[in-house]
Amino acid sequence: MKLTPRQQEIIRLVKEGQPITSESLARTLGVTRAALRPDLAILTMTGILEARPKVGYIYSQKPSHSMVYDYIIHIKVKDVMSSPVVVNEETTVYDAIVHLFLNDVGTLFVENKGTLVGAVSRKDFLKIAIGGTDIHKVPVGVIMTRMPNIVFVEKEDSGYLSAQRIIEHEVDSLPVVERVFEDEKEVLKIVGKISKTNITKLFVNMGKNK
Amino acid sequence: MKLTPRQQEIIRLVKEGQPITSESLARTLGVTRAALRPDLAILTMTGILEARPKVGYIYSQKPSHSMVYDYIIHIKVKDVMSSPVVVNEETTVYDAIVHLFLNDVGTLFVENKGTLVGAVSRKDFLKIAIGGTDIHKVPVGVIMTRMPNIVFVEKEDSGYLSAQRIIEHEVDSLPVVERVFEDEKEVLKIVGKISKTNITKLFVNMGKNK
Repeated sequence: MKLTPRQQEIIRLVKEGQPITSESLARTLGVTRAALRPDLAILTMTGILEARPKVGYIYSQKPSHSMVYDYIIHIKVKDVMSSPVVVNEETTVYDAIVHLFLNDVGTLFVENKGTLVGAVSRKDFLKIAIGGTDIHKVPVGVIMTRMPNIVFVEKEDSGYLSAQRIIEHEVDSLPVVERVFEDEKEVLKIVGKISKTNITKLFVNMGKNK
Repeated sequence: MKLTPRQQEIIRLVKEGQPITSESLARTLGVTRAALRPDLAILTMTGILEARPKVGYIYSQKPSHSMVYDYIIHIKVKDVMSSPVVVNEETTVYDAIVHLFLNDVGTLFVENKGTLVGAVSRKDFLKIAIGGTDIHKVPVGVIMTRMPNIVFVEKEDSGYLSAQRIIEHEVDSLPVVERVFEDEKEVLKIVGKISKTNITKLFVNMGKNK
C-alpha cells in the first residue's frame, strides 16, 4: 500500500506527540479538520493509527495487522488441502515406507474400513527403522499414533486454525475429516490433509499476482 | 477491517456494474461525489477496488492483497530463524540420527572447520536406514547433500524469499549463512536455519495480538 506524503507526515506527527487530537494535527499541518478526515479514516481503518475517543490518535504497534488477520482467517482448509496418502493397519512398516517415498509425503494416514484410525510420520518410521525391529514383519498398526490421539480439522475450518493446531501439537500434518453417521455412531472419513508444506505454499501464494 | 454499510454498498454496486464511474455511484447513492471521496479512497488504497483512469472503478479479485504482501515482505529471516543443529562430516549416520531426535529437528547441517559443507534430512536418513547399510560405520559426509547444491538464505533476506525457496526446491529447511572472507576466499558460516515450521509459526503469529 502506498501512503501519500501527507499520510506519512501524519504518522510522523502522531508518533512524536501521541496521543494527538485531529484539531492539533490540522493546526500543525495548516489545513482544516475536514480536509484531514479522509486521511485519518484510511490510517485508522488500515490499523496504522488508533483513534481513542476524547483522547486522540495513537500509533498502532502493528500496522495493517488487522487486515492481514482478516485476510488469512477467511482462507478455508478445503482451499489449501491436498490428497492424503492412506494405508491399512495390516500394511507392513516396510511397505508403508515405500508408499511414503513413492508419494513423497511426510505422513501416512491409516484407515480401517474407510474410517480414520491412525497416523504415522517420517519420524515414527525413522525411530523404528534404527531400532532393530524387522520392518518387513511389523504392521503399521503397531507403531502408528492411534485415534483419538490424532488432531484433525474439517473442510470448512480455516487454514489459520490448521496452522495453529500444527504448531500447538508439534505435528507436520493434520488429516482433514468428514463426520459421517454409520450404525448410529459418528465415524471420521479422511478426505484430505493439510501440512506445513500447504501452509508454506499458502504463504507464498499470498505474495503472488500482486 | 470493518467496512461501513456505505462502503459495502459501494462494493456491491461496483461488482454489479463495473466499470462504474464515481459520478454514477454518487447518483445511485443519492450523494455528492465529494461525499464519496473518502470511501473510494479507502476502498482503492486497501486494494478492494481498483480505479482505472477514464474508465471507472472495478472490483479487485484480491481484496486487501497488496497490504498483505506489503506486510509479509518486510519480515526478515533474522526475525524468524531458529538455531541450526550442526554435525561434522565424520559423525556416523547413527550418531547423527540421535542428534536429530535429541534436538527434535528435521534437518542437520554439516560443517567442516566452521564452514557449511552439507545438509542431511530426515528423508535421507530414513532412506539409508532401510537400505541395509551399517549406519554405525558410514559417516554423514557420504550421504549428505553437498555444497554447492544447498539452497540458502541470509539474515537480511525476507522470510517470504525463504518460503519461496523452500517450496521451489522442495526442501524442509534452509541454512541461514553469513559470507566471510578467509584466505581471500569467500566461505559460508552457518548462523541459523529457517524451516516450514518457522514459516507456519510466522503465519500463526500474523493472526495473534489482534
